[in-house]
Amino acid sequence: MIKAYAAKASDADLAPFELERRALKPTDVKIDILFCGVCHSDLHQVRNDWKNSKYPVVPGHEIVGKVTAIGDDVKNFKAGDLVGVGCLVDSCQECGACKDDLEQFCEKGATWTYNSPDKHLGGHTFGGYSESVVVDEEFVLRVPENIAPEAAAPLLCAGVTTWSPLSHWKIKKGDKVGIIGLGGLGHMGIKFAHAMEAEVVMITTSPDKSKDAKRLGADAVLISKDEDQMKKHQGSFDFLLNTIPVGHDLNPYAALLKRDATMVLVGAVEPLEALHGGSIIMGRKRIAGSLIGGIKETQEMLDFCGEHNVVSDIELINIQDINKAYDRLQKSDVKYRFVIDMQSLKSS
Amino acid sequence: MIKAYAAKASDADLAPFELERRALKPTDVKIDILFCGVCHSDLHQVRNDWKNSKYPVVPGHEIVGKVTAIGDDVKNFKAGDLVGVGCLVDSCQECGACKDDLEQFCEKGATWTYNSPDKHLGGHTFGGYSESVVVDEEFVLRVPENIAPEAAAPLLCAGVTTWSPLSHWKIKKGDKVGIIGLGGLGHMGIKFAHAMEAEVVMITTSPDKSKDAKRLGADAVLISKDEDQMKKHQGSFDFLLNTIPVGHDLNPYAALLKRDATMVLVGAVEPLEALHGGSIIMGRKRIAGSLIGGIKETQEMLDFCGEHNVVSDIELINIQDINKAYDRLQKSDVKYRFVIDMQSLKSS
Repeated sequence: MIKAYAAKASDADLAPFELERRALKPTDVKIDILFCGVCHSDLHQVRNDWKNSKYPVVPGHEIVGKVTAIGDDVKNFKAGDLVGVGCLVDSCQECGACKDDLEQFCEKGATWTYNSPDKHLGGHTFGGYSESVVVDEEFVLRVPENIAPEAAAPLLCAGVTTWSPLSHWKIKKGDKVGIIGLGGLGHMGIKFAHAMEAEVVMITTSPDKSKDAKRLGADAVLISKDEDQMKKHQGSFDFLLNTIPVGHDLNPYAALLKRDATMVLVGAVEPLEALHGGSIIMGRKRIAGSLIGGIKETQEMLDFCGEHNVVSDIELINIQDINKAYDRLQKSDVKYRFVIDMQSLKSS
Repeated sequence: MIKAYAAKASDADLAPFELERRALKPTDVKIDILFCGVCHSDLHQVRNDWKNSKYPVVPGHEIVGKVTAIGDDVKNFKAGDLVGVGCLVDSCQECGACKDDLEQFCEKGATWTYNSPDKHLGGHTFGGYSESVVVDEEFVLRVPENIAPEAAAPLLCAGVTTWSPLSHWKIKKGDKVGIIGLGGLGHMGIKFAHAMEAEVVMITTSPDKSKDAKRLGADAVLISKDEDQMKKHQGSFDFLLNTIPVGHDLNPYAALLKRDATMVLVGAVEPLEALHGGSIIMGRKRIAGSLIGGIKETQEMLDFCGEHNVVSDIELINIQDINKAYDRLQKSDVKYRFVIDMQSLKSS
């Protein structure tokens, strides 16, 4: 049994919990967890907002740690390696999606890092708010040694969620890219788009976020409540990355797109307000979705982060402070990602 | 002055009207109108549904006729040619959209065939419910001589509106293409997708449309109200062409798309019901709009129709019956397009 933190019901605080990890299969890697990022979806799952939570919930899918043991057939990792685990720990590896390196869309259903049926032990999977984890090497990522491991943890979800659409829609030097919403996802969107040499515009309702947006790499800030500013930027964006985590009106943002340009939603897994057909019929515009990223592109993202020295802006906490952190997360009171120092678990 | 039919106010029936056409400029073509299709947008404009109508409204943008005179510099047409005019009669010819052969998105504003500011005579443009029209040759289309001219008229709007997205999204042999909605647009969508050798599925709420859908070229019919059928086709479509002309729920249709596949809206220029973000985030799906087509692709569509013998299914009427036709159009009581025999105007 290993130490962890879990929620035992939708109204329960996270509290110490003990869980079992499986014995190593030949292709498994055992990882001692150093750091685990706190994703907004952890909060959704703990509170059963998506009505699919299974208790106890041990959240955490932004895991960075050290390999401590490997199965006999493991080829790519050895003890001591700095590695990461994101949202996925398994998939069928055979369907069209898996063959296209998009395991998140596995046609037989990917195994998520927590709250997903556990093929090995039965029950459901437990995430990274724990001492260690055992993962098939196909789902283990290599974390560059030159970036701070605690600040790399959020790359495993917030990072790849914003990287994937920017990469898939081939954002390049000089493209005018708008990042809508400045939170855990948005701040990574700014950093990546900036590192890709795009012209980055932070689009936010809050004028007080301007200074920080520019520090993160935005070339300009567009206040979406200011109709004159919105009109000035109308029809001028090559790409919009929409990170707003709740339902909202897409029409004003669609108006910002150039002809044939795309806005990608990564945040709002809930109903949006009524889209006007004319908002996309005029200008042959596109609205698309994107969900985290496959293992191959997660590794590409991490390698890019090593080369360009991109990490998340984080606030490091002890696991004992996780419930307070959730309260602050709900008020968007974090710049920009809580990361748990898992060493703190030892004193639980 | 030439004879025409016009609505003088939003609550007025269409009635005989006389209008002036401009004298030929050097690049102009004069066309005697043989046939004019009746588009649903004619009805919207006559009734001021879009709040931008200018009266009197002379509708009609599905025009087929014979060239009777040409300006001194006209290069591509001569008297006697069978030609067409669609939704566009002018654009700046200089902006990015015009240079990309997408004059419908002219950045300075295209001149629409009716109800658009008239650069030459002042006032606004008058459409094809009239004896003749004068149009710059850049906006005149060549109609293949081997297809029935009356059945070719609706190609100029309903045709290119459905052709353009099927062509732009590169529908090819074997693609599973769903055409949503069987009306003036949908019936052309079936014919084109079938001629492109796609596997065509007609998606409709009405089981009684099945037989006709198959006659038009559909390989199968999917009744969208039947949840079992919808589930069976889930995640299986390479492309969806959504011709529904009113606001509706996109979510059940988005569920039909394969990963990375696109649904294009061409009908609903009005607010849609709430889209769930998850409907496109799961599967990285895309929803796009498309508006008629540029002049180049309209000609490509007409040439394709000549080669593949594709025309619209029409009901030929006299102009004196136009108000009755509008009443039937509003009840979707037409298979699938009214076309006015403009010879009837002579007896008005």
